[in-house]
Amino acid sequence: MGAKSCIIIFFFMVLATSSPSTGRKKQYKSCKELLLYFHDVIYNGKNKENATSAIVAAPEGANLTILAGNFHFGNIAVFDDPITLDNNFHSKPVGRAQGMYIYDTKNTYTSWLGFTFVLNSTDYQGTINFIGADPIMIKTRDISVVGGTGDFFMHRGVATLMTDAFEGEVYFRLRVDIKFYECW
Amino acid sequence: MGAKSCIIIFFFMVLATSSPSTGRKKQYKSCKELLLYFHDVIYNGKNKENATSAIVAAPEGANLTILAGNFHFGNIAVFDDPITLDNNFHSKPVGRAQGMYIYDTKNTYTSWLGFTFVLNSTDYQGTINFIGADPIMIKTRDISVVGGTGDFFMHRGVATLMTDAFEGEVYFRLRVDIKFYECW
Amino acid sequence: MGAKSCIIIFFFMVLATSSPSTGRKKQYKSCKELLLYFHDVIYNGKNKENATSAIVAAPEGANLTILAGNFHFGNIAVFDDPITLDNNFHSKPVGRAQGMYIYDTKNTYTSWLGFTFVLNSTDYQGTINFIGADPIMIKTRDISVVGGTGDFFMHRGVATLMTDAFEGEVYFRLRVDIKFYECW
Repeated sequence: MGAKSCIIIFFFMVLATSSPSTGRKKQYKSCKELLLYFHDVIYNGKNKENATSAIVAAPEGANLTILAGNFHFGNIAVFDDPITLDNNFHSKPVGRAQGMYIYDTKNTYTSWLGFTFVLNSTDYQGTINFIGADPIMIKTRDISVVGGTGDFFMHRGVATLMTDAFEGEVYFRLRVDIKFYECW
Repeated sequence: MGAKSCIIIFFFMVLATSSPSTGRKKQYKSCKELLLYFHDVIYNGKNKENATSAIVAAPEGANLTILAGNFHFGNIAVFDDPITLDNNFHSKPVGRAQGMYIYDTKNTYTSWLGFTFVLNSTDYQGTINFIGADPIMIKTRDISVVGGTGDFFMHRGVATLMTDAFEGEVYFRLRVDIKFYECW
Repeated sequence: MGAKSCIIIFFFMVLATSSPSTGRKKQYKSCKELLLYFHDVIYNGKNKENATSAIVAAPEGANLTILAGNFHFGNIAVFDDPITLDNNFHSKPVGRAQGMYIYDTKNTYTSWLGFTFVLNSTDYQGTINFIGADPIMIKTRDISVVGGTGDFFMHRGVATLMTDAFEGEVYFRLRVDIKFYECW
């Protein structure tokens, strides 16, 4: 093996190890992917048994049994929603989505999300932590996967959200396409 | 040094640099570890001087001087808690744990945490940022360390929480075993 | 090329690939930097049209049209603030800062931040996600950039905040110097 081969190896490896900081977005291949759904039933004063989330904060003049006017600006909801593998609310849950969403805009529906997927199935045991802005009226929205534990130890990635269904202001279902780019 | 040695080096290094994405969880060695405690005294209408946290949001029908029924579902508490090196509330604090917790489940005690350790001691100056789900009734719970500043610049890791003590609904102490796996 | 050169390459590369875990803080060079401002106009009962944020939670005894006493301890505000390239409130926004801040200390002004920059300009399309403690009375404060999407896909870094202006308890402007150290 002469100088040439060694130099080729050298450049190949510089390329390989530096790619995280020089590459362009979107051409990256994910190291793991999960497609999950979660289902949110907002408490509206009449559905105490079925509700999976509750409005716990509201701007001045609003109350906690109905989402506020002005595109719900100022509402904070806390949730513990079932996660399923398909879009059927009655499918056996594989875990719970737990955290909060905040409606933070006065002239359109936009929320800010901070939540965790707590997965507890034969396939996956562990948690995935998310934060990000969710401009609800846009078809697909990307948020950050900022960490994980258990089977998702130290993982990072991007999750693409789609509103898969919503019924009035009581139910919505989010499709979450999670792509991990750091897998450990 | 011939072709063989160079190839060995080559494979050794490919292994070394790719380990983050191929290894299995839990066999990783942390690059830094911290064991800390923090102490939370919830305001209950009578302990204004000593309280380090306050309930600031609650579901419909609940109030802000007592944790809500239904496993406190819907309560948000804001806190500024002393951090100590041991489990003694009266030890000299090395910093403050600041942020919020949310009780987000109707059928057990589970909270969602978003908070920062602001450390300010002779040993450490800097901040550590955490988010994650905290299923309180389980003995040890893992949350994500998603970033840091100062001495913890760009750090990531996992923190294992244990409830070290709790007294009624006024005081609890959390043991936080922080393991950093990205140290910079 | 003999054994010596190959060994030199070997050590050079070990150095290069291991630097993230062995280097000291602050000597790192950022791979991308952004300097932005955002402007927060708090609703105070009289400025419904102009307000970009609202108090949505408060401790017991406080209300939602004025920040609470005790250094606003226990207030949560939700915001959708314009982001500008300079410190002029009337400059054309390049995006929105969306999320929440929490006043979490009883004896000084400190907040905890969870928010997203949603950038939508000719220069940048994408989101940047932040969390961290903000000890407002200190001149410069560092928080974590924990993830991003679009042009900021998978980015991480540190943002340095400065209060660039504030007027009573109605307006403040934050200067945000974002330094990314993981760029992808």
